[in-house]
Amino acid sequence: MTIANPASRDGQPRGPYKRGIERRRQVVVTATDVFGEFGFRGGTLQQVADRVGGTPAAILKLFGSKERLLIAVLDHWGSVTGEIVARGTEERAFLDGFVELMNYHVNHKGLLQLYTTMAAEASTPQHPAHEFMTNRYRRTLESMRNGFRAASEGGHFRRLSEKQIAHEAEYLLAILDGLEIQFILNPAFDLETSFAAYVDTVYERLAV
Amino acid sequence: MTIANPASRDGQPRGPYKRGIERRRQVVVTATDVFGEFGFRGGTLQQVADRVGGTPAAILKLFGSKERLLIAVLDHWGSVTGEIVARGTEERAFLDGFVELMNYHVNHKGLLQLYTTMAAEASTPQHPAHEFMTNRYRRTLESMRNGFRAASEGGHFRRLSEKQIAHEAEYLLAILDGLEIQFILNPAFDLETSFAAYVDTVYERLAV
Repeated sequence: MTIANPASRDGQPRGPYKRGIERRRQVVVTATDVFGEFGFRGGTLQQVADRVGGTPAAILKLFGSKERLLIAVLDHWGSVTGEIVARGTEERAFLDGFVELMNYHVNHKGLLQLYTTMAAEASTPQHPAHEFMTNRYRRTLESMRNGFRAASEGGHFRRLSEKQIAHEAEYLLAILDGLEIQFILNPAFDLETSFAAYVDTVYERLAV
Repeated sequence: MTIANPASRDGQPRGPYKRGIERRRQVVVTATDVFGEFGFRGGTLQQVADRVGGTPAAILKLFGSKERLLIAVLDHWGSVTGEIVARGTEERAFLDGFVELMNYHVNHKGLLQLYTTMAAEASTPQHPAHEFMTNRYRRTLESMRNGFRAASEGGHFRRLSEKQIAHEAEYLLAILDGLEIQFILNPAFDLETSFAAYVDTVYERLAV
């Protein structure tokens, strides 16, 4: 019998534990592709298992349920998109990172569709992703408020009250979600140009 | 055997045909409540039948499928909300109608949740509401463009180019959808105040 070894002395996971983490990561990345392509209901554990090598039962054992795998997928997607947004922070104000993000979305439409559907569906407290989504929205709004506050204090934007900051964050998140819905319903819609033009109106409106 | 009589000489439907229309209307209004309360998947034809008096089979006979009933519900909801928005057109610019609409949404949260989920979900071409939703978004954007164009030509807003009009319509629809998602995920979110403040920024931004 092998005993899992959570962390060795240098703090790096090793052995079966490390392989477990790596295996989870593989499954999540693959499931991201499958759900992104076929949707949550359309995509099956069998498809994920076929691509990653293994059985649906083994995947269920790793994640507990298809719903929990979905949450891991959304979490993974949240990290990827979060990194893209963060890359934008270094130049100009933080809004440019979101322009980058739209480019990513256009190239990962299936996931966007999955995420947007999930956001609306998960509003019922019984939904498996309810807590994940409400937390994600809360944290996203908070981080957007921080962005507007920093841009205001840093002199990129004019002085904004906390109420104005809260509203700007709400509008930014709403515009992102709303334009994304328009894009998934109409692939001809130019999401990147439309959002970039919105960011211009924000810069104009909040100019010092 | 009774022959349906689509219209009498004065153009008003009568007899079995009229009763058929009235029956459909009853079922749609009731299904709107049921889906609004339990969602599309959670709400059952049995619940609709229990409330309206009748059987699931009789409802299926009227609409063909649960999906078609859903589309009739969304259509009904679209008319109700369309009338609210139109009432706003008479005073100030057309944007005030949408402020009214937010008040309606806050009091019909289940339907809002249903609609928002459906909008995202229906982006897959196989979805039963795909054509309904893509058409609705196309028509809504068109009608919003007409609103901005009229407000611009009527001197309520400054002169806008067609491209600016298109963007303003995209942002308005996106803000509505996006803020609605924030509201259904967080019932404490003040949808009406947030949206009304957005409308103020539009008036300011587009002032003559």
